[in-house]
Amino acid sequence: MSSQKNILILGSTGSIGVNTLNVIRTFPDNFNVTGLTVNSNIDDLEKQIDEFHPEYVVVIDKNKASKLQKRIKDKCKVLSGSEGLIDIAKNSDYDIMVTALVGFAGLSPTIEGIKRKKRIALANKETLVVAGELITEMIYEYGAELIPVDSEHSAIFQCLIGEEKEYIEKLILTASGGPFRNWGKHDLESVTVDQALAHPNWKMGNKITIDSATMMNKGLEVIEAHWLFGLSKDKIEVVVHPQSIIHSMVEFIDGSIKAQMSLPDMKLPIQYALTFPERLGCSYVETRLPKLKELTFFEPDYEKFECLALAYKVMETGGTTPCIMNAANEIAVEKFLKGKISFTDIPQIIKSSLDKIENHRSPNLETIFECDRQTREFAKNLFDN
Amino acid sequence: MSSQKNILILGSTGSIGVNTLNVIRTFPDNFNVTGLTVNSNIDDLEKQIDEFHPEYVVVIDKNKASKLQKRIKDKCKVLSGSEGLIDIAKNSDYDIMVTALVGFAGLSPTIEGIKRKKRIALANKETLVVAGELITEMIYEYGAELIPVDSEHSAIFQCLIGEEKEYIEKLILTASGGPFRNWGKHDLESVTVDQALAHPNWKMGNKITIDSATMMNKGLEVIEAHWLFGLSKDKIEVVVHPQSIIHSMVEFIDGSIKAQMSLPDMKLPIQYALTFPERLGCSYVETRLPKLKELTFFEPDYEKFECLALAYKVMETGGTTPCIMNAANEIAVEKFLKGKISFTDIPQIIKSSLDKIENHRSPNLETIFECDRQTREFAKNLFDN
Repeated sequence: MSSQKNILILGSTGSIGVNTLNVIRTFPDNFNVTGLTVNSNIDDLEKQIDEFHPEYVVVIDKNKASKLQKRIKDKCKVLSGSEGLIDIAKNSDYDIMVTALVGFAGLSPTIEGIKRKKRIALANKETLVVAGELITEMIYEYGAELIPVDSEHSAIFQCLIGEEKEYIEKLILTASGGPFRNWGKHDLESVTVDQALAHPNWKMGNKITIDSATMMNKGLEVIEAHWLFGLSKDKIEVVVHPQSIIHSMVEFIDGSIKAQMSLPDMKLPIQYALTFPERLGCSYVETRLPKLKELTFFEPDYEKFECLALAYKVMETGGTTPCIMNAANEIAVEKFLKGKISFTDIPQIIKSSLDKIENHRSPNLETIFECDRQTREFAKNLFDN
Repeated sequence: MSSQKNILILGSTGSIGVNTLNVIRTFPDNFNVTGLTVNSNIDDLEKQIDEFHPEYVVVIDKNKASKLQKRIKDKCKVLSGSEGLIDIAKNSDYDIMVTALVGFAGLSPTIEGIKRKKRIALANKETLVVAGELITEMIYEYGAELIPVDSEHSAIFQCLIGEEKEYIEKLILTASGGPFRNWGKHDLESVTVDQALAHPNWKMGNKITIDSATMMNKGLEVIEAHWLFGLSKDKIEVVVHPQSIIHSMVEFIDGSIKAQMSLPDMKLPIQYALTFPERLGCSYVETRLPKLKELTFFEPDYEKFECLALAYKVMETGGTTPCIMNAANEIAVEKFLKGKISFTDIPQIIKSSLDKIENHRSPNLETIFECDRQTREFAKNLFDN
């Protein structure tokens, strides 16, 4: 690669964060870690500090932050709280910000990165889901770079290299269909937390694994694709592909379809987001198609997976409805993981929130934050046993 | 598209020629037929003249040529013989030459097109197989453009748009495996002409259909890919994919694979070769993956399909051995179609020819022609009942 790149990872002990560090470990001459952030997992963070020597780290939990600073002494500077997150995004030295935070928290630091014209390697879905209009405008205004890390969007991004937007007929996002692909609609009522956490193909964090089981994950990705690639609802399709080998596809106006594929391994799209437009040789996976049994494809069941249908609906409605859906979903998933609600209550909580909370057209950041806060407060009290 | 393009089609009544005219018929504002050539099928050619109004046509068969000129009077000028083919390539007005001739005959007119810096939409495999070194040097020297029409090479060409050659790990050419994919090696001895002509996925001419049944077609394509994309033997793989939906793939050094796919329809790669780098909207096929049963992949059986193994061998040996293999194969297929030899005699005739005819390193055009002539003469007398 042309030169060594400095990397700031927001959310370094989560699945994407750890895999980003795996990529960086493979190419020590190409990448240098300058910043890491965690919510509270200071034990793992301490090991990462010892190995990668960042200049700054952020621990959102303030008690844990002081505990860590005492432990590591002057090895590196520890910031704390969400103001620490803004601070590191605003003031520390980096070329690429990997936003691997879960949920709504990734938004503010991402904006700081955009203002500094940095490359944003975006693994935080909510950034574009809740603030897609704002973020894409800012990217354009500041001339920053937004490279997707999600395997689906990375696949589409790769298929579009060298092609013109006007040649796109539609994007085809593949979905594994999750663990309940073959379950009946009514069987979903009795789903347990363990069943929902048993994803067939990908090992990921809990929130995203539940989102994958409800197919909300795909819904969020559809909205994300809408903003990333500037295409309307009718140009973005979902196809269920249980083997997760084809990560997504683009169909062009002449009927030609390009697909990007490999054995599932998040290191591939992460590395591509760091190296684009270059590629670096590595051997994370060897995809031998004859060793795979078959590749199959199915239409998604929008009645069974109501969350996916809701995502298409809010994408069309726009305004703050994607923010309401996202906030309600975060709360609902939290409740489900704690055993407080059933699996099929998740879309119900979202629908109740969409009915209750007012929609604002072309919201600014303050409106989005307020809408998020209101929705969470409302959703928290729903369906409690 | 930017401007109307003039098209010369060499071999206009064959499968590729007819499909090229189908594409042109769909986009009368974008393309204009200036020249057509046939071997002897003047009845179909006359209909094409009436519809597309070319300035010149060529009929290789001289008697048929005069017959046609009498019939059509001054509708257009009829040239004849292989000198007519050279003449039209050298002197007529065209932007794109579609070389859809079967066999060795495409070589000389293609060279004339290259010298005039035209775009060559190459559907004639033998051009690169027998004279790959010469042709690729000439393309570079004259600054002509070589765009593949074969669905496999078009797929690879499309997957490589916007990517650098140094990022290629390997090309993966897909092969349907032909009608004998599941036959035992020894069952091939009793194959009839009708069985060999029954291709499962593509409707093509007789020569190429037999080549598909022996997998020589894939062997020729491997050698063609070697020259088109400038990659060595170990970077070009064949994978059997019976459904012919994925037309071919490129694996990159980071493990990412790009594939190009659609329902099988030659109009797609033909149109792309005419419109590249643009795409034109059309609706020849609608590929709905959920409507397909499955996509499967197998390793090719090089023992059963000796012709494929022979192609890899001559690609490595180089010199005139690909020319010998190609000429011997043309003769052998002709003999098989006439019922003079058995299906499994085809690779035997090629092997005997490779043993007998001397190999010349870095051959010039005269050496290639002489090698072709010698091989045909030798192979003609082999294995006759």
